[in-house]
Order: sequence, then structure tokens, then C-alpha cells
Amino acid sequence: MQLNEHFLGLHGSYLFSEIARRVNLFLEMEPDAQLIRMGIGDVTRPLAPAIVEAMHCAVDEMGQSETFRGYGPEKGYRFLREQIIKHDFLARGISLSPDDIFISDGCKSDMGNIGDILGVENKVAVTDPVYPVYVDSSVMDGRAGALLTGGVRERLVYLSCGPDNGFVPALPTTSVDVIYLCYPNNPTGLTLSTAQLKLWVDYALETGALILFDAAYEAFITDPDVPHSIFEIPGAERCALEFRSFSKTAGFTGLRCGYTVVPSTVVYKATNGQMVSLNALWNRRQSTKFNGVSYVTQRAAEAVYTPEGQAQCKATIAYYLDNAAMIRKGLTSLGWDVYGGLNAPYIWFKTPDGSDDWHFFDRMLKEVQVVSTPGSGFGPAGRGFLRLTAFGSHEATVAGIKRLQKWWSTQKKASSTVFNPSSNTISTY
Amino acid sequence: MQLNEHFLGLHGSYLFSEIARRVNLFLEMEPDAQLIRMGIGDVTRPLAPAIVEAMHCAVDEMGQSETFRGYGPEKGYRFLREQIIKHDFLARGISLSPDDIFISDGCKSDMGNIGDILGVENKVAVTDPVYPVYVDSSVMDGRAGALLTGGVRERLVYLSCGPDNGFVPALPTTSVDVIYLCYPNNPTGLTLSTAQLKLWVDYALETGALILFDAAYEAFITDPDVPHSIFEIPGAERCALEFRSFSKTAGFTGLRCGYTVVPSTVVYKATNGQMVSLNALWNRRQSTKFNGVSYVTQRAAEAVYTPEGQAQCKATIAYYLDNAAMIRKGLTSLGWDVYGGLNAPYIWFKTPDGSDDWHFFDRMLKEVQVVSTPGSGFGPAGRGFLRLTAFGSHEATVAGIKRLQKWWSTQKKASSTVFNPSSNTISTY
Repeated sequence: MQLNEHFLGLHGSYLFSEIARRVNLFLEMEPDAQLIRMGIGDVTRPLAPAIVEAMHCAVDEMGQSETFRGYGPEKGYRFLREQIIKHDFLARGISLSPDDIFISDGCKSDMGNIGDILGVENKVAVTDPVYPVYVDSSVMDGRAGALLTGGVRERLVYLSCGPDNGFVPALPTTSVDVIYLCYPNNPTGLTLSTAQLKLWVDYALETGALILFDAAYEAFITDPDVPHSIFEIPGAERCALEFRSFSKTAGFTGLRCGYTVVPSTVVYKATNGQMVSLNALWNRRQSTKFNGVSYVTQRAAEAVYTPEGQAQCKATIAYYLDNAAMIRKGLTSLGWDVYGGLNAPYIWFKTPDGSDDWHFFDRMLKEVQVVSTPGSGFGPAGRGFLRLTAFGSHEATVAGIKRLQKWWSTQKKASSTVFNPSSNTISTY
Repeated sequence: MQLNEHFLGLHGSYLFSEIARRVNLFLEMEPDAQLIRMGIGDVTRPLAPAIVEAMHCAVDEMGQSETFRGYGPEKGYRFLREQIIKHDFLARGISLSPDDIFISDGCKSDMGNIGDILGVENKVAVTDPVYPVYVDSSVMDGRAGALLTGGVRERLVYLSCGPDNGFVPALPTTSVDVIYLCYPNNPTGLTLSTAQLKLWVDYALETGALILFDAAYEAFITDPDVPHSIFEIPGAERCALEFRSFSKTAGFTGLRCGYTVVPSTVVYKATNGQMVSLNALWNRRQSTKFNGVSYVTQRAAEAVYTPEGQAQCKATIAYYLDNAAMIRKGLTSLGWDVYGGLNAPYIWFKTPDGSDDWHFFDRMLKEVQVVSTPGSGFGPAGRGFLRLTAFGSHEATVAGIKRLQKWWSTQKKASSTVFNPSSNTISTY
């Protein structure tokens, strides 16, 4: 029996598992430590009342034979797909069909599994830094090639994003087939303007590439010039898929629901000349390897689109954006280089002493008990940066910022030279 | 951009989508038809009161900030994995760890996705007839080879099961690496005894093959000599994975929850000599491409194991088994060749006139409005058979049997010769 040996080329653990491991190790040593978790992008506010009410109704329906529901439609219930079309697309002038929508158990699943319908030989481009799932799933599928020194993969094309280019990736200089874009960006918290995103759509249309657009953080956009959907750009309906999630929009990280938009107009030519719709392939993939989302959860997602649900979810988003503003302001006041946090729940900052990010992660954990995410976990260009998230409570966020401010103001600048920037292993605790 | 062209070798649609298509076509012509659906294996009884109660509690927890839960542990909540170990394994003398259990959104997802961690070159064996997901996912992954005349795949090994061998597959005569077994069987409703299953475990241990054991219908076993888990067979913990589901056990087809057992002792050698645990690979796969199951659903699954939940779920299983007994008796009384239905919710029967199964499906649909599943949808050896399911209400089941009895008793046996056994296309309605 042979293994899929591409797995052996992966890092030992998924980034967030590694963070959890280090945190748990620390807590074993310091069981009374009052951690403030600003690492993983997990929400903390409860579900909105409109959602809770819809779920209670759906649970009751499932308990009565007259209203019980078994297997749902493979793409998801039409009641939900129609609300999505109306609110997320038609309201922004985008014309799509409910048949273009596939309800799923979350963006990560679909971003990970979408590779199933694409050829293994495709050349894949990712931004750097990047959400690790795009790289890890490319490795698993055999598209990434060997791990080279510097932490890059032989067959991936990295689109470097940093302060020098304003974190805006340049179009690739070599030919690529599949491009992962995530905007508002995880981890940097930055966005692309309509004009910037249009460059990518035009590139894909010209070269025949496919854009996989992760819009999981769309609900955090405040700037009117930032597109909420790639389908706001003309032509994207012929070269892009979009991945959405209720996780951050409505606090569904514990409920599991998202959706993927596969317009029926996204069509590629097979080697036998046949024109093949990705919608048909994805439908076949999902109806074979997936069985849909809980009816109760789909009713919960539907409730997000009611007037009450919209108002309640928007209030929660505003709450998190307040946190983001506080973090931005707090770190900026220390003289740190801070990015993001205006149209996204993520704040990206440079280690203020130029030290390695895993080292700075460990110091923040050990010295002020604030959990962050090391930027190099998102790719080579993330080295020397860290990500904080705005998903905590106001109180915890304020406390975290205060701790960081107090801590950093007492650090002698000179002491920073004791850190070894190349180290990325944790101390012995 | 290249497609995964293995998809182009699939049948146009998944079996149950094709059935739905034909049924809908019929309903367009005969909108007032009173269909009795005995085709797809979907449950109809409502969720047990203990489950409903647990879900209401969990929904309320999600609505309060003190008890709200975001991302759960990647393998599923420990409260559920511990109940599974205690009730489904320890109670049968099987020693496993909660770390061997991966909670998922259903058996079909995991049976479909498990191929991600296995090499593409593996030679795959399936019983014939077979649950289509094993074949279709093998096609998608590139393990099945071309479709040959007779409906078989070039690279798959088919283990034929029919009346001549009592539907008990013989060990393969050529070398195979991965073996899909499903017992109680879908579609035939038959089982393997402990001695019969032991032959397979011994074979796998001797040859280094891996058994993927689908035990989704375990709750329907009534015969004391039929193993509920492959791990009742010594040595299986070194060569088998088991896939379980709450879909049929507790009516979760609309809620989506199952689990996969990957004992840490299932280890295979990589080409570099390294011993690799499938548990570690599956954990990596799931933490990258899956985000777990709704907290509310996991609490629902936990409630299945309470004394009330056990009693209520067992009553529902008994209800469906009563249906199965009625179908068995009803069809047998017509002189038809009938199999299964004693330890499973499925009844498998031979077309009584020797006609083609899609043709007989169409006749049953058109002439008595009973929906069945044509056996050839499950593989070449299913040709000439049909499957009925026991998941309807008592009333619908009784009515369906009565319709079939009345209809068939009026058929002139001689008329059977007008059917063309090679036809598998539906008439023009």
C-alpha cells in the first residue's frame, strides 16, 4: 500500500496547531497565566439573536415527522442560495444565478478541496505572505514541488508583498495557471482597490489563468473603493471562483457554513477540445464527496440576511473593527510599523527590534502572555512580521494593548541585539 | 489552466441525481402522482427527543458570550469522542483511544476524501455491486483507469457478489492494495460473519493491503454472529480504517455527522523507509482541508449515547427493521428472489421477469409510482437487481408493498418478453 508521499514534504504541523502546541507547553509551566489570545482568527461574540431564534425553529422542525428534513439538495437549500444572490450580489449590481452557488461547511474546506477538479500540472501562484491552506493543499495535491532553502516550494510562484510595494502583489513574470488571491487579506489585513483587482482579472482573461478569490473577510470592508466581490470586475465571471464564509461575517466558526461561487460561465478547454464548465465539475465533486450542510445551520445562515440578522451582524463587525482600530492605534503609538486593520480584522506589524518573528512570538507569550501569530508561518515574506487579530472582547483587547505598551516602554532599545534573528525554535519551557 | 480530466471519464451524473432527474421528469408529466419513495436511502423519522433537547441547549450556549464556542478541536470535541469509544468500542471489547477518532460531517465525505492520503498508483478492489462513491472517487483520484465495455474500470479489481456465492466476495486473485468493504452492505443488505470478515483481515495483514471498512449501517445488525466493527477481528487495528455515521443510526442525514476510526497502529512504509502513521496523515489532511462539525451537531451526536437517546434511537431502528421485514415478506410472497433486510435497511431483489433493472425501475415508477434504485447503478453485477429501502413510514411501506403485489399479480408472465434487457434509457415521458 502506497502513501501519498507529497504529505511527507509538509511541515510537521499546520501553523495554528504549532501555535497551540507552544501555548499549551507554556501553560503547563505557568498554569495560572492569564493569556490574551490575539493569535488565531477565531470569533468570540455570541451568535446574533435572530440566528439563535432561527436555529431553535429549525431544531423543532427536525423533531417533528411532518417537518423533518433528511438529505438536502446537494448545492444547499434554495432558500439560502436565493438570499445570497439577492444580498451579496444583486445588491452590488452583480448578476449570478442560485445555481452558481454551492453551500459548504466553510471556506477552508472548499479552498482546500477545489484542487480536486484542477489538473496536477497547473502552475500555481500565491501571494507571499499567504494563508497556509493554499500552499499546504497544493503540496498535498502534488502541485508545489520540493521545499527549497528559504522555505519556498520549487513549483509555486510567490508574489511577494511587503512595505516596498505597499503589500500589492505585482503580476507574475512567468506563466501561471491558477492564482490564489485573498482580499481583504489574511494575514496582512490589507485590500486591493477596484483598479488593482481589475489588473488581475484582465491578466487571467488574457492568459487563460483561473483566479481563486477568497473573500472570507468581505464583511469588514469600510472603504467604498474596495470591491466586496471579484465579480464586481467585468470579465471575472469567466475566470474566477469566489469563496465566502459566514465564519467571520456572522460568527459561524463553531457552526460551519460558507459558500463557493462557481459561475456557469467559467469554462476551460480539455485536451480533447471539449469545453468543460467548472460548475459541472465542482457539482460532481461535491455530490460525490460531500453531503451538504446541516439544515439547522442553513436556516441560521438564512437568518443572517433578515433585517434583524443584518443589523445584529453588522453591530458585531463594528465591535471587532473597533478592536482593530484600538490595536492599530496602540501599536502605532509605540512607534511600530503597523498595517491593516481598517478593512479587515487583522493587524500586521513588523517586529520593532528587527528580531525574528517566532522569537518575538515567544517573547510576547512568555513576557506579557499575549498570543500572536508569527508572520513566517504565512511564508518567507512574512518573516519579521506578526499578525494580531481583532476578534477578542473589547476588554481583552484593551488589556492586551496595555500590556504590550507597558512592556515595550520598559524595554531598553539596546537589548534588542541579544536576539538571534535566525532562531525560530522556542526556548526550553 | 488544466482540468483534472479524470472527471471527464465519470458517468454524467451521480446515481441518485439520475434517479431524481427521472422522477422529476415523471412528476412534470403526472403532477398529481402519489409517489412512494423507496429509492434513496434517506431516513424519514424525526430526531429523537433527547437529541432535540441537546440541540436546543447547544443553540442557547452559542447565543451567550460566556458559553459561545468558535472553532472546535480539529478531531472533534472530546466529549463526543469519549462517548464513541465507550459505547461503540469498549462495550464490544475493542480497545481504541479517543485520538483514533475523527469526527466528520458524514461517512460519504470521509470515504470520498480518504484517497487524498493514499498513493495514486494503489490497486483498488471493490465489491460488485458497490456503493458508487468508492468507484467515483477512485475515478476522480486517477486510480480507476478507463471505462471498459461492460461498465467496468480498467484498473479496479471487482469482487463479484451474487446469488451463486451467497453475495460473499471471494479474496482477490491478483494483488490489491486498497479494499473497500461495506457491511452491512449497501446495496444488497447482506452481512459478513465474523469468520468471513476475518479472512479479509488476515489477507490484508499478509499482503500489506489496507481495508476501508464502511460500517454506516451497523445499528441495523440483529444477528449476534455479525461483527459491528472490523476491530472485533484481531489484527484489524493494523490494517483497517472504519467509517461510521449517525445518518442512519440516529436520523442525521439532514444534520451531517459521522466519524472515522484511524488507529494509530495502522502504519505503512514510505519509499524512503520511513514508517508513517495514517492517523498522522489524516490529521494533517483534515486540519488543512476541513474545519470540523457544528458544535450543535456534536452535542446532538453526544445525546445519541445517553440512556434516553439510546432507547429512542433503537426504537426508530426497530421501526425501520419492521418495514424491512414487511418488504421482504411482501416481495417473497410474489415469488420474487429477495435478499437482505434482516440486518440492514436495504432489500435487494431480482427483476422477477428477468428484465433490465433500469427498465423495471421505469415501470415501477410509471405503473405503480414506487421509486426504487436500479441495481446496475451499483456496478455490473447489480444488473437485473433493484434495491428498496426501509426508511419510509410504516403506512407508505405497507401501501408500496400493496401496490406492487396488486400490480404484479395482474401481470401476465408472458408479457415480460416484451422488455428489452439491454435498454437502460428511460421512455420519452
